[in-house]
Amino acid sequence: MDIFIEPIGRLINEFSKLPGVGKKTAMRYAYRIVDMSEAEARAFSDAIVNVKRKVRYCKICGNFTENEVCDICRERDGSTICVVKEPRDVAAIEKLHEFKGVYHVLHGVIDPMEGVGPNDIRIRELLARIGEGDVKEVIVATNPDVSGDATAMYLARLIKPLGVKVTRLAHGIPVGSEIEYTDDVTLTRAFVERNPL
Amino acid sequence: MDIFIEPIGRLINEFSKLPGVGKKTAMRYAYRIVDMSEAEARAFSDAIVNVKRKVRYCKICGNFTENEVCDICRERDGSTICVVKEPRDVAAIEKLHEFKGVYHVLHGVIDPMEGVGPNDIRIRELLARIGEGDVKEVIVATNPDVSGDATAMYLARLIKPLGVKVTRLAHGIPVGSEIEYTDDVTLTRAFVERNPL
Repeated sequence: MDIFIEPIGRLINEFSKLPGVGKKTAMRYAYRIVDMSEAEARAFSDAIVNVKRKVRYCKICGNFTENEVCDICRERDGSTICVVKEPRDVAAIEKLHEFKGVYHVLHGVIDPMEGVGPNDIRIRELLARIGEGDVKEVIVATNPDVSGDATAMYLARLIKPLGVKVTRLAHGIPVGSEIEYTDDVTLTRAFVERNPL
Repeated sequence: MDIFIEPIGRLINEFSKLPGVGKKTAMRYAYRIVDMSEAEARAFSDAIVNVKRKVRYCKICGNFTENEVCDICRERDGSTICVVKEPRDVAAIEKLHEFKGVYHVLHGVIDPMEGVGPNDIRIRELLARIGEGDVKEVIVATNPDVSGDATAMYLARLIKPLGVKVTRLAHGIPVGSEIEYTDDVTLTRAFVERNPL
């Protein structure tokens, strides 16, 4: 006889797929769902399906959007592009209300150890945007780790010859941590003190 | 402009309803869902709806079941009833594979401060089961706190006159811990409940 009846065991199994969630935590989450009203559980379930159905990538910057082009690309000054690894980095930077330009999400960084080369991330698309002529500065906001640094250097070598200023977020971000988890003050300092590459 | 597009913000909000989940954790969970395949997200969403649709309470013991009467009530020796506060306590005890009797889930404990009296929990149903005549022992496994203690005392006063043995889980020093670090209340209980060697 199983400890859990099938529907609960199945839900625990699903919750266990979330990052950092073990069996005990998944159990607590599953019990919370059982205690929810039918309507609450339905809303939860719908939100999951909805996110998969509605969220796609902006065809310009690669960030999450519900439309073909995201609100940031449509409404903001395109002369400064902030280059990030992942959409979650855009959210971390937007939270500051400090940066007023647009983004470019690479969806990865150059990482030879993992077999990720320049052609595997959205560098071509970035060059195409720069080629259209309005870009004055590219701020590279990749993580301060080996592959983030390598990607930043690579981009600087490609973009500077085009007459565009290339900067990088200041080291103020603790090395070894990630942009997503950097506290707001540190992340703001890193923006203000960005250095030319 | 919001930091998150609506579908992601909504999903973060739903995840925040889980116990112990703050904004940052909810964000991580939501990003994981966005990264899932359509099929994975669908399975997750279905598991939530499924649990609400299929899980109900056993009409005898009050534990979770998919049927009218749970497997434990149907298959096991009913002469010993273990009384617990919530279904999750059944899971914790079943994990041991030690107890071979049946359960009775009170769905709460007597707690005058919270306005919960004996009629608000499944005590009437417990007495009815005992009244049917086969019960030899009732093990009270409520939590060792004020309301758990009060409920245990109340049940003992009701049930003992019916000629049924009433016991309670032992309290004492957790196995593997040390006397020096045991809290005062527990250590006092360990003295009071000391056993002959």
